[in-house]
Amino acid sequence: MSLPLSCFSVTLGPTFTPLVVVELTSDAKREAVEWLLSRIRDQQQAGGAELLVEQLAPAVGAQEKENPNVFVVGASRQRLLSGAEEVGLFKEFSDGSMRTFTCSNKHNFRDFEGDGDSFLSMAECQFIIKHELDTLRAKDETHVPGYAQVKLYPGKSIGTTFPLGLFVTSWIFLTLLSPDDIRHYYGEGLAFYFGFLEYFTFALAPMALIGVPYYLFDWEDYDKYVLFAVFNLIWCTVILEFWKRCSASLAYRWGTLSRKKAFEEPRPGFHGVLGFNPVTGREEPLYPNAKRHLRIYLVSLPFVLLCLYLSLYVMMVYFQMEGWALNVHDEEPTFWTGVLLFIPSVIYAVVIEVMNLIYRYAAEFLTEWENHRLESSYQNHLVLKVLVFNFFNCFASLFYIAFAMQDMVLLRQSLATLLITSQILNQFMEAFLPYWLQRRRNKKMIHKVQRRRTLEDREFPLAEQVRLEAEMSTYLGTFDDYLEQFLLFGYVSLFSCVYPLAAVLVLLNNVTEVYSDAFKMCRVFKRPFSDPAANIGVWQLAFEAMSVIAVVTNFALIGLSPQVKAYFPESDTQLILWTVAIEHGLLAFKFILTFLIPDVPKHIQIKLSRLEFQSLEALKKKVEQRLLDASPAL
Amino acid sequence: MSLPLSCFSVTLGPTFTPLVVVELTSDAKREAVEWLLSRIRDQQQAGGAELLVEQLAPAVGAQEKENPNVFVVGASRQRLLSGAEEVGLFKEFSDGSMRTFTCSNKHNFRDFEGDGDSFLSMAECQFIIKHELDTLRAKDETHVPGYAQVKLYPGKSIGTTFPLGLFVTSWIFLTLLSPDDIRHYYGEGLAFYFGFLEYFTFALAPMALIGVPYYLFDWEDYDKYVLFAVFNLIWCTVILEFWKRCSASLAYRWGTLSRKKAFEEPRPGFHGVLGFNPVTGREEPLYPNAKRHLRIYLVSLPFVLLCLYLSLYVMMVYFQMEGWALNVHDEEPTFWTGVLLFIPSVIYAVVIEVMNLIYRYAAEFLTEWENHRLESSYQNHLVLKVLVFNFFNCFASLFYIAFAMQDMVLLRQSLATLLITSQILNQFMEAFLPYWLQRRRNKKMIHKVQRRRTLEDREFPLAEQVRLEAEMSTYLGTFDDYLEQFLLFGYVSLFSCVYPLAAVLVLLNNVTEVYSDAFKMCRVFKRPFSDPAANIGVWQLAFEAMSVIAVVTNFALIGLSPQVKAYFPESDTQLILWTVAIEHGLLAFKFILTFLIPDVPKHIQIKLSRLEFQSLEALKKKVEQRLLDASPAL
Repeated sequence: MSLPLSCFSVTLGPTFTPLVVVELTSDAKREAVEWLLSRIRDQQQAGGAELLVEQLAPAVGAQEKENPNVFVVGASRQRLLSGAEEVGLFKEFSDGSMRTFTCSNKHNFRDFEGDGDSFLSMAECQFIIKHELDTLRAKDETHVPGYAQVKLYPGKSIGTTFPLGLFVTSWIFLTLLSPDDIRHYYGEGLAFYFGFLEYFTFALAPMALIGVPYYLFDWEDYDKYVLFAVFNLIWCTVILEFWKRCSASLAYRWGTLSRKKAFEEPRPGFHGVLGFNPVTGREEPLYPNAKRHLRIYLVSLPFVLLCLYLSLYVMMVYFQMEGWALNVHDEEPTFWTGVLLFIPSVIYAVVIEVMNLIYRYAAEFLTEWENHRLESSYQNHLVLKVLVFNFFNCFASLFYIAFAMQDMVLLRQSLATLLITSQILNQFMEAFLPYWLQRRRNKKMIHKVQRRRTLEDREFPLAEQVRLEAEMSTYLGTFDDYLEQFLLFGYVSLFSCVYPLAAVLVLLNNVTEVYSDAFKMCRVFKRPFSDPAANIGVWQLAFEAMSVIAVVTNFALIGLSPQVKAYFPESDTQLILWTVAIEHGLLAFKFILTFLIPDVPKHIQIKLSRLEFQSLEALKKKVEQRLLDASPAL
Repeated sequence: MSLPLSCFSVTLGPTFTPLVVVELTSDAKREAVEWLLSRIRDQQQAGGAELLVEQLAPAVGAQEKENPNVFVVGASRQRLLSGAEEVGLFKEFSDGSMRTFTCSNKHNFRDFEGDGDSFLSMAECQFIIKHELDTLRAKDETHVPGYAQVKLYPGKSIGTTFPLGLFVTSWIFLTLLSPDDIRHYYGEGLAFYFGFLEYFTFALAPMALIGVPYYLFDWEDYDKYVLFAVFNLIWCTVILEFWKRCSASLAYRWGTLSRKKAFEEPRPGFHGVLGFNPVTGREEPLYPNAKRHLRIYLVSLPFVLLCLYLSLYVMMVYFQMEGWALNVHDEEPTFWTGVLLFIPSVIYAVVIEVMNLIYRYAAEFLTEWENHRLESSYQNHLVLKVLVFNFFNCFASLFYIAFAMQDMVLLRQSLATLLITSQILNQFMEAFLPYWLQRRRNKKMIHKVQRRRTLEDREFPLAEQVRLEAEMSTYLGTFDDYLEQFLLFGYVSLFSCVYPLAAVLVLLNNVTEVYSDAFKMCRVFKRPFSDPAANIGVWQLAFEAMSVIAVVTNFALIGLSPQVKAYFPESDTQLILWTVAIEHGLLAFKFILTFLIPDVPKHIQIKLSRLEFQSLEALKKKVEQRLLDASPAL
């Protein structure tokens, strides 16, 4: 399925390396398609993209309803390099610093050898072509030829563009690679996810190491957890702070740390009355902020609160059912009442999953309806909605058991059950179920392919590969993967002191997670476009919020422990006051620590400020020179 | 004393507007002085500053030991404009946006009329000249002529430069002016202080308005303060958030919001082994970070903690003395025992003031000894040290009374006493005492001046004005002014619910503070150089930290109130748990609010991103053009 490309270029039409596939709807008018192709092929002087594009060989059998409007796009090496300059790519300079790439001094960049064939990574090439195609659409046409009613404005998408995932030879291979290699194939966004996953997995090791003896020797003596809770607190603050430094190092090496963000165009789904953007002065749909705020605060917020209430209500029903089942079992214990004991948990687990699913759709619908102009703001609002609900759904019952019922044995049991089932469910739902569905769908395709191969042996690979990949699901971004890690982090940091094995379980899960995620990326989904991220974005904030909540829960657990209670035999008030005072002190310390540990490692800071200093000096010299040149004229 | 300048330029030597005074030590060698003067006068092509400089007319009577090495420096209008470009000044463009000033399109800037005489403010002109003099010293000389042993490196100061404060005609005038006018005379740093002072004074109005009826009608019913505490909480969060927006507006209007910071040179007191700066590659003293950290954590931090402990100890002694005095008075009350009651407070107040003073010197010494490379980092460390100790000294006794003794009547009394005495002391120490000392010192000077005037009538004003101002104290920055406001903010936000009149007192204080500060700036101190600040810096953080502490203290006070206690008659535990839970919720809400309220107002954000978009577009066009030009050659 993944042969090296050189074969194709001989056997198949394209005389260039195909990088991106453009697929238009099969009923697109001929003149519109031709207009688009000519725009892609046109010289840059003429406003075109100057890319290479060729139609994919159409299907042989006319009886098959295949989309004829599938095109592969590539570019000459020269075009890619000039595109890299336009995009503002950062590359390693010969002196070891990262600088914006320019064609004029390309030979001063470290990895530029010969013609620069291997200078740009596959992900970068695809990103450049996507960028060119995107900015192509953002020109001054007012409508698509053949579709007079289809108005064009910057950022409106005409077809679907997706990159061609050709170069990963084996999925197991990926997992042995460093984030640097993943970045080479999939770009920075995904590389950051894998980097974080690996970092988090390593960071779990000390927790797991300490957790095992706790589990082995103090199993019944669960009031010994004070020390563990304190360790837990320090651990989650420190690992997040160091991840920031680690992330800055990665972003610097990948050239995204100081890269200027391009101006964000409105997202495809955004609609409104056509007007003039106050920033760009271009014509584009406008939607008043006040209206959006009304939608957020009067509809979305109450909806989220209602869902939280519903989730709380379901939880209370679950506890009542459990109590009732326990009663029945206690009155007259038989085999069937023993089975009955498990039924509430099973029902609750299923209901939670269903609620999560429904809520997810509702959240996407609502966030879409809020009509955010930018993809980033859409993502932030969606993440916030889903995060709050998932947090609540996963942890509300644990909070209730810990602080309302104060039953540490039950807490430990629930934690273990929830953790293990959610891990198994996740791995299954996330990778293997989609893969299985995929296979079923693709079986027909492969059959067809094989049948056709017997007919015309020479025409096979690229066209079929493209059509196969077109059938694959679209990867919706790292959202679900981060969400899963976020919840796992919650299990470890919030309550693990009552169940020290949690860290071990999460560690084991993450080791397999790396494999299943890699598998998912290679086999289940279309290869996503690279996303030049400089950090893990809103998730850093989410993890930090969780670690603050962890301080509070851990202190509450410490306050509840019989061991601590023994120190204040005369009054609970004293105990609580001391716990609260120390907790406040620790929270303050945590914030101070966040300030004290610099977010960017020293050596990178020096490199960055050296570059900044040099550009300031250059600017000063230029100004001085200009003033000197101009002075006779003054 | 402050005649318009036009008189001088006729009667006195200088044919230019004198802007800055350069004073060298009186025993400076002649060749060094001449070298410096020639460097200042030289053309820019020759590496000079191209400024106008003239020696101040020497004293007439030879018997007077006046420093002959006093020079006035000015510049041609053209030179000032080109200096403005070099410094990177932001000015209002004709389309209403703020842009970096360039000489080539100077006529497109809004306030540029005719020759541009009034285009630059006095503070800006002085800042430009200071910048020119500073960068002049940063050239490649290795030592000062005549002083072979005095090595030169960038930023090392040779003499003392201070600006000439000539144009403020009357100090009362200043207080009627807006921060914009203050900025015109004193630059952004001080304008921000006055802006903040005015904002804070206005923001106190609602607190004062609500406080008065509380004071009038509920004086004895001090458990009614729950509502007031809640109002207090919201108030201090909201005013700080809105100040940020207000500050961004000011900074935008003043052109400092998006102005690039120049590379910071090492501060004058910085010393170390000569080496090469890793950022600039220049030769300058280096001092290892690790050594500085050792000094901070092993000496400064323990010292601060020791001082805090000492302060705590003094406080406990005070409470014991007070208890003892009360005992004596209760046993056998006479007039003298009545007087005795006041003695502990007086002693404590005096001891606190003395401790503050000694500590301040120690903190300055330690921070100097820590040997920070940058002035900003020196300032931050000094502010932190002084802040913590002052906070402790001022509020520790109040905390003790409120939470250890839980005596609300005493708390109110102490708060009132502390607030009123500190206000009176401050105003006196800050403006009137230095003024009085100044007058005593200057009396002789003025006598001399008058005596001389009778001798030679035409030679008087500028030279004497300069010598008078040289005698004035140096203004050490806004540190003490902000510190005072910080402590006042503490009195209002931390405990004002038990003494609602606090806001009224602080309001009254601040109304007079504006006047005394203006008086101080005009009459007591040398005119300071402008400091192109974009916000109030570390003080924003300090005020925000105080508002977080205010949430905690207010909730503790609410928890202690008999009114709330009445809701939980059966158990204190329930009361405390609820208080703590709500407090945590409110803290979370406060943080969310900080995120939700954007720091920069929408209309300024749009202007900023418009500018950024335009520069991105221009860059893109330039790159594209260059690539097109180069393409035949490729």
